Amino acid sequence: MKAYALLGGPAGQWPTKIATVFHRAQERGALIVGVDRGCLFLKELGLSPNLGIGDFDSLHPREESQIEQVIPDVRYSTPIKDWTDSELMLHAVFHDYHVSALYLFGATGGRLDHFLVNLLTFARPRLRSLAPKVHLIDKQNWIDFYRPGKKIIAAKKAYLYVGLVNLMAVKDLNIIGAKYSLRHFSSMYPRAFASNEFRSGSDNFELTFQKGLVAVIYSRDLNRFANV
Amino acid sequence: MKAYALLGGPAGQWPTKIATVFHRAQERGALIVGVDRGCLFLKELGLSPNLGIGDFDSLHPREESQIEQVIPDVRYSTPIKDWTDSELMLHAVFHDYHVSALYLFGATGGRLDHFLVNLLTFARPRLRSLAPKVHLIDKQNWIDFYRPGKKIIAAKKAYLYVGLVNLMAVKDLNIIGAKYSLRHFSSMYPRAFASNEFRSGSDNFELTFQKGLVAVIYSRDLNRFANV
Repeated sequence: MKAYALLGGPAGQWPTKIATVFHRAQERGALIVGVDRGCLFLKELGLSPNLGIGDFDSLHPREESQIEQVIPDVRYSTPIKDWTDSELMLHAVFHDYHVSALYLFGATGGRLDHFLVNLLTFARPRLRSLAPKVHLIDKQNWIDFYRPGKKIIAAKKAYLYVGLVNLMAVKDLNIIGAKYSLRHFSSMYPRAFASNEFRSGSDNFELTFQKGLVAVIYSRDLNRFANV
Repeated sequence: MKAYALLGGPAGQWPTKIATVFHRAQERGALIVGVDRGCLFLKELGLSPNLGIGDFDSLHPREESQIEQVIPDVRYSTPIKDWTDSELMLHAVFHDYHVSALYLFGATGGRLDHFLVNLLTFARPRLRSLAPKVHLIDKQNWIDFYRPGKKIIAAKKAYLYVGLVNLMAVKDLNIIGAKYSLRHFSSMYPRAFASNEFRSGSDNFELTFQKGLVAVIYSRDLNRFANV
């Protein structure tokens, strides 16, 4: 079973066809998950989430009771905690529902502390093993996560650019067969390499590294006023 | 002298009063800097940048010649390079123009590989010493950077939340006197702590740490459709 989750990030950053994406996923038996305000957003998109997680602090009591009526499995987090809402959600979908993959929406845009929690949470040792099963998607970005080894990075039709970020210390990172190569890069701190591309006529390149966690960010340009 | 720079990020993420901010800054003698498409955006806002930096690859030749006519100091970067456009800009404003502070706009939203370059660039050893002089600002976030020591983090009127991110390994991080405290936190990898707040009646808290680089992210909620 796959899971599709919507977090509380601004609607302006969602892919334009998000309603279709979630409805099709639900028809195919995917677990539909709302995190905090994402529960309400899903309801407004005409979906009945299977699982809801959050402290729901920012919601009106009426909204909160709507969530409890509609969602069969609601789990409450507390603001003073070691685990964030997103982390509780990861634990629930992978450990309790045993999903094989998680597509995460509403994780970007708006407050940058929220986005950075959603991105950097995968560097935590207890969540690192889940990272390769997670895909973080918004209107113009698709992020996959890789653990050490030799990986083939395949092109995605709708995305021209591919950036790489070592989210923590990395050892002997190599990018082979992309437009811009990188050889034997090691670093004690995170670094982002933006705007790489697939070579013309090639639909993949090789990524190898020995230690760390690497995010691969597929992205595309939009009209400059697309977000206004 | 202070510098105000506009990068190529989407206009939808700029603070709403960005034109006023830049015009006032220029009246007060600040250096106005455009990076790549940011040069054109500044022109459209009615400003004459003092410095322009970029590969200008995505621009029409006509747009490029406009930039050369209007901006007295234009510096070209190459796509195959160790320094990004933003890094070249940092070098130019701090080493050539000797500015005391840099206010950076258009660094967020849109392509996440671009944003992460703009954020993580300050973890690079040769740029780390500049970080405390840089303020990264968009519609709902204000990011400051801190190097090790004992710091007083002051509240900012327009922002309810304050998040912290250690952008690299950190040693003995303490948050004292905020709504949520943190004691003796050390980590080999970056981690984001979102949604902290100033205590009611208090307009600051203490941040101490021994090693690393910490980003303090002031943020606020906006109407959920503000970005649509």
